[in-house]
Amino acid sequence: MSTSTTDRLYLDDLHVGQRFKSGSHTIEEVEVKAFARQFDPQVFHMDNEAAKDTLFKGLVASGWHTAAITMRLNVETGLPFAGGLVGAGGDVSWPAATRPGDVLHVESEVIELIPSRSKPDRGIAVVVSRTINQNAEVVQILKAKLVVQRKPAN
Amino acid sequence: MSTSTTDRLYLDDLHVGQRFKSGSHTIEEVEVKAFARQFDPQVFHMDNEAAKDTLFKGLVASGWHTAAITMRLNVETGLPFAGGLVGAGGDVSWPAATRPGDVLHVESEVIELIPSRSKPDRGIAVVVSRTINQNAEVVQILKAKLVVQRKPAN
Repeated sequence: MSTSTTDRLYLDDLHVGQRFKSGSHTIEEVEVKAFARQFDPQVFHMDNEAAKDTLFKGLVASGWHTAAITMRLNVETGLPFAGGLVGAGGDVSWPAATRPGDVLHVESEVIELIPSRSKPDRGIAVVVSRTINQNAEVVQILKAKLVVQRKPAN
Repeated sequence: MSTSTTDRLYLDDLHVGQRFKSGSHTIEEVEVKAFARQFDPQVFHMDNEAAKDTLFKGLVASGWHTAAITMRLNVETGLPFAGGLVGAGGDVSWPAATRPGDVLHVESEVIELIPSRSKPDRGIAVVVSRTINQNAEVVQILKAKLVVQRKPAN
């Protein structure tokens, strides 16, 4: 089930098993290199020729770039949570490389909901987001703890 | 103990408990907003006034921006590993917010070393990197699984 971003969801609106799907983003080579220059200046992210001699066998995006694109997709079209997407932390892995030209989208599922005992206006939603390329390969799995608002009392 | 980046370390050179310390980076407000526009367009990362009414009570950097800066610091001055820094994944948390003007550095410790059984040329180093601000507050804890080369046989 997908939910349109016109509905902003509170913790009370979520249920375990609920699924969301984002729009897509094509990651261009120029973006891969620009991110790398700024945040992850290593040859396999910056130099097409030198990257062939690394364990990646060619240019790949920084994992943190994949994570940042995933965030963008989830903020804009993926997870329409009231109060926005506020992460307390999470587990991230990159089972496959992201390469220039890849078309990425994100599929997410709510796996746990934890109302806060001390703060009645919020809780934690544990959400697994899989970032998937045009060949249906999962390039990132993020299990995130998100702080989500509870529905205000009227 | 710190290790200069002129020594490139193989898995065989590492030991549990080994520590590393990076140089520092001052995160400017213009950077916070530029990263947010590109990857995390939410009001608490982009609009000083509107951010005051959020749970952050002011402008804060995206957690993924803190992660990206941490990577830059570790690549350039933090973790001088042979073959570079290749992450298979990890756990990240943000115990405190990063704010404009913060001066960040990274302190890392090797907590586990796992030679690969199937690939004799490499292994995994589990490294905890704490990103720390000018007030000695930890703004990010990253427990990363890094793929590290083994020393080549001569």
